[in-house]
Amino acid sequence: MQHLKAPLGKESILKAIRSCLPADRKNIELHEPYFCGNEWKYVKECLDTNWVSSVGKFVDLFEQKLAEYTGVKRAFAVVNGTAALHISLKMAGVETGDEVLVPDLTFVATANAVTYCGAFPHFVDCEPVSLGVDAKALDKYLAEMTEMRGSVCCNRDTGRAIKVLIVMHTFGHPSDLDALQAVCDRYKILLIEDAAEALGSFYKNRHVGHWGKFSILSFNGNKTLTTGGGGAILTDDEDLGLRAKHIATTAKLPHPFLFFHDQIGYNYRMPNINAALGVAQMENMAFFLEQKRKLAMRYKKAFSGLSGIRFVDEPSYAKSNFWLNAILLDRGVAQERDALLDYLRNDGIRARPAWTLMHKLPMFADCPRMEVPVAEDIEARLINIPSSPFLINEATS
Amino acid sequence: MQHLKAPLGKESILKAIRSCLPADRKNIELHEPYFCGNEWKYVKECLDTNWVSSVGKFVDLFEQKLAEYTGVKRAFAVVNGTAALHISLKMAGVETGDEVLVPDLTFVATANAVTYCGAFPHFVDCEPVSLGVDAKALDKYLAEMTEMRGSVCCNRDTGRAIKVLIVMHTFGHPSDLDALQAVCDRYKILLIEDAAEALGSFYKNRHVGHWGKFSILSFNGNKTLTTGGGGAILTDDEDLGLRAKHIATTAKLPHPFLFFHDQIGYNYRMPNINAALGVAQMENMAFFLEQKRKLAMRYKKAFSGLSGIRFVDEPSYAKSNFWLNAILLDRGVAQERDALLDYLRNDGIRARPAWTLMHKLPMFADCPRMEVPVAEDIEARLINIPSSPFLINEATS
Repeated sequence: MQHLKAPLGKESILKAIRSCLPADRKNIELHEPYFCGNEWKYVKECLDTNWVSSVGKFVDLFEQKLAEYTGVKRAFAVVNGTAALHISLKMAGVETGDEVLVPDLTFVATANAVTYCGAFPHFVDCEPVSLGVDAKALDKYLAEMTEMRGSVCCNRDTGRAIKVLIVMHTFGHPSDLDALQAVCDRYKILLIEDAAEALGSFYKNRHVGHWGKFSILSFNGNKTLTTGGGGAILTDDEDLGLRAKHIATTAKLPHPFLFFHDQIGYNYRMPNINAALGVAQMENMAFFLEQKRKLAMRYKKAFSGLSGIRFVDEPSYAKSNFWLNAILLDRGVAQERDALLDYLRNDGIRARPAWTLMHKLPMFADCPRMEVPVAEDIEARLINIPSSPFLINEATS
Repeated sequence: MQHLKAPLGKESILKAIRSCLPADRKNIELHEPYFCGNEWKYVKECLDTNWVSSVGKFVDLFEQKLAEYTGVKRAFAVVNGTAALHISLKMAGVETGDEVLVPDLTFVATANAVTYCGAFPHFVDCEPVSLGVDAKALDKYLAEMTEMRGSVCCNRDTGRAIKVLIVMHTFGHPSDLDALQAVCDRYKILLIEDAAEALGSFYKNRHVGHWGKFSILSFNGNKTLTTGGGGAILTDDEDLGLRAKHIATTAKLPHPFLFFHDQIGYNYRMPNINAALGVAQMENMAFFLEQKRKLAMRYKKAFSGLSGIRFVDEPSYAKSNFWLNAILLDRGVAQERDALLDYLRNDGIRARPAWTLMHKLPMFADCPRMEVPVAEDIEARLINIPSSPFLINEATS
């Protein structure tokens, strides 16, 4: 069936998608914020008290709520997920001329952040269940192409140190963290979780973010929880966490009035007004997740009878936040992906494909990489469909 | 009189400061936001329309208002002034191993941004009127220590290219831009204006920001106008401006659904909710400036009869925004600076000294620099005093 050449049933797919969505909405974005709690109240409090900038109670409160919810020891709110990745890589000791293993299938920020350290992204393949880094393929690849020099894993070809693996929980589905951690341990590589899309996602009943020495979140406007723009660094290492906060806030030493900075720092702290939104959104996190799961299950059911496509479900070991719902076209009809996207978008459904693979972008074309047959396959066949938490609320059941 | 060793009249200074400030306020911060316009209305509109993130009408509107007000062709709103400097330096062609001339007396962000490009800050002295870069001293220094290699000015000692001079309008007082531009022209060095503190400041009747190929603003919580956290890039070169915007927004090529990025980019765009604050604040910009000028003139008058200190006035060629009012202790009593700071702060006046000079910070200790006697002198003697625009409003006249 998979190589069937029959034309894709675009009408049936559109009908299936529409059957899950509110009938009275013509244009439906991929993911929109849902402000149904104390957003107004807290933001107004910032304005009324003059505390809008990077010092203020909502920043502390938001960080506290993030740490509690995810179970990590320390959470630090920053301006966005990219900044969180940059600081995490710095803290992990990534330096000019190093290499960092990065999934080929990811948003460009993951690879960009590596270059901010003067390092080179080194792209690896994903596996077809979680769409995250393939631990087995990575293990085999590292055995072939690296050698240990003392306690440092080095690329045999380039001679560069490979210090870090960033895994990314694609569309909110957790990567296979235990397996990936085992590979990292074997090669003495430090793990960082890019959980930009995965707030509210659990791996084997524990929230993601504990496997990486550092993990990062994003609260961009298209995420499950938004602060306008924002991100966070999570860590279970209190000392490293405090040092991360220090360099994210211009590395200024505490003093009542003297300005003394003890190292190169960054201006990455989240403003209080954005954190106020975050605190209000956190209060509704359980509700958002419930709504998003309902929508995902409705999609799953609606697509179950259709030929030519399948719904991308959560891995068996995980409870996903279903950040962005996705469907995969069968290989035989993959060439119709763009026609289907046009068809859906013409009807008002803002569907989109996966990101262009990192190694196909001009600035990363010469970066080292393994063969990426699965990433290529997923890129060719995947489509994201609307996933806002309020959509299910309004739909007829 | 200047070398008089008589003890500083701390009580008279406190009394003079207090005479300019509201009698019913015990604790007075250095600079606080003033939300007295449409801030809540516009922020609420963001929440009501779901447009909180980096796309939205307030970002466009804020940029339009900034361009109109300053008179530049293009203004782009970003997450903060540091990000604006980073992008400006990138656009100016600063690369790994270059040198950038930076005032020794500045906030650390000016020098940090240079290092983000892999370049080295090269510190220069200021002059005592504007507290900005001393054009004459710089000219003499460059004549001695540089040589032209083709059209590139190079440091004779290090062999590195010196591509850019960043000038910083200290506490809002414009540097002597014509003189500095002439030096830059002579050595084929590109000028960037760090106007983080200078929105609302005019040099020879024209708003600052037109002399630099790029100029930057900051809207941090302590600035004349705040967006919580934020900054902007200003330029009169439309083409360079659009390219700056492109790399500040992940360098994504416009396409209805494809994610294709044509170069290393950054995640630096200002969220819409922060821009909403900015639009409201811009509507009151003239009022803020009027209030701040009134306060400055009141301070000037109050200090005019005191010995041991003088008020730092705007340069004769300029109309300053008086972002942070400052007093200079006479040299003979400079050693009492910290005692005066403690005395004022114990009374609730959040005074502070100037920043530690850049060459005294450990990460910049080995950077090239000229002798900086004026910066050393200013650092030892300067104190900033409360400057919020609402203070005058409440004070008895």
